[in-house]
Amino acid sequence: MTARTGRRPGGGDSRGEILAAARASFADRGYDATSLRAVARAAGVDPALVHRFYGGKPGLFAAAMDLPADPGTLVRGLLSGGLDGLGERIVRTFVGVWDSEPAQSRLVAMLRAGVAGAEAADVLRGYLTDAVLEPLAEATGRADGRLRASLAASQLVGLAVARYLLRLEPLATTSPEDIAAALGPTLQRYLTGEVALPEPG
Amino acid sequence: MTARTGRRPGGGDSRGEILAAARASFADRGYDATSLRAVARAAGVDPALVHRFYGGKPGLFAAAMDLPADPGTLVRGLLSGGLDGLGERIVRTFVGVWDSEPAQSRLVAMLRAGVAGAEAADVLRGYLTDAVLEPLAEATGRADGRLRASLAASQLVGLAVARYLLRLEPLATTSPEDIAAALGPTLQRYLTGEVALPEPG
Repeated sequence: MTARTGRRPGGGDSRGEILAAARASFADRGYDATSLRAVARAAGVDPALVHRFYGGKPGLFAAAMDLPADPGTLVRGLLSGGLDGLGERIVRTFVGVWDSEPAQSRLVAMLRAGVAGAEAADVLRGYLTDAVLEPLAEATGRADGRLRASLAASQLVGLAVARYLLRLEPLATTSPEDIAAALGPTLQRYLTGEVALPEPG
Repeated sequence: MTARTGRRPGGGDSRGEILAAARASFADRGYDATSLRAVARAAGVDPALVHRFYGGKPGLFAAAMDLPADPGTLVRGLLSGGLDGLGERIVRTFVGVWDSEPAQSRLVAMLRAGVAGAEAADVLRGYLTDAVLEPLAEATGRADGRLRASLAASQLVGLAVARYLLRLEPLATTSPEDIAAALGPTLQRYLTGEVALPEPG
């Protein structure tokens, strides 16, 4: 049996210790100030092992928070299909994940925590920016890509709050197909269309 | 001095007692099950006085919750300008109120409470439906007006959460003019344009 101190090669409960150390760091220091290296040190494992298990900080966060799906992975999959029809694909995927259980309960809990106070909001903002906004912004290939990505995020967050938290009718019971038809063009315009904004200087 | 029991004509601290009774009823029974008549009875005043002071249940709620602006009044003002350019006018007004203090602090507190738990969500949903969604839905003159209004609400709620709670950048620091230019067409399409939905049967 491996000693509990020092770096271990990844057997035993390395995953459990990494995730516990990650949860503690995200809660104590926030998302941005958490480093894979410090999490690895606290868990007594090699940083390369954390990379191998979770790919990077967004994947580590998704695993530590027990998210039903890793948004970073979903975003990469959506972007691999190109910019054509991206808005509707994003909405379909988003509603598909949120409409299913136990995903919905966990996501609702995370969103509630994220809007409840300034510290949890910092963590959620750091994560969303790293895992979703930056890849989306880059995919637009535009100088104002970050603003475009944050506009898209605002509609998705609003859909989540209106449909799953506030349960505004009839949006709370509208079919996923109708939601994709209604919101898809909004995201498409935000990401690739005319948003009537001056180009950043 | 007027006796503390029985119906009083509206002098003294009638407003304070009405608002205290309203807050208690909204918290205990929720928005939908609160009646102006029961609030008046609890406050020991005539129901006509509650109507005269606050116009109706949405106005009573806004006053009881110390909202910086009565959304019901704002919506009526916006709708009086007709459907042309309505989307951009709504976004401008929304951002104008939320960007100012002390409005922003109070609205942030209300939104946090509204998404924190199921009971507060019920109250906020009841209020938004009564004060904002129903007038908007009616103004569209469409059979699917309620869905259109809830789509518009989802983008506004998402803007509030992204800009003021999560503070996603660069949306959190984008100028009100640029936000109106970006989001105005979205609301306009939801309310009056093609949303690719089958007409409700």
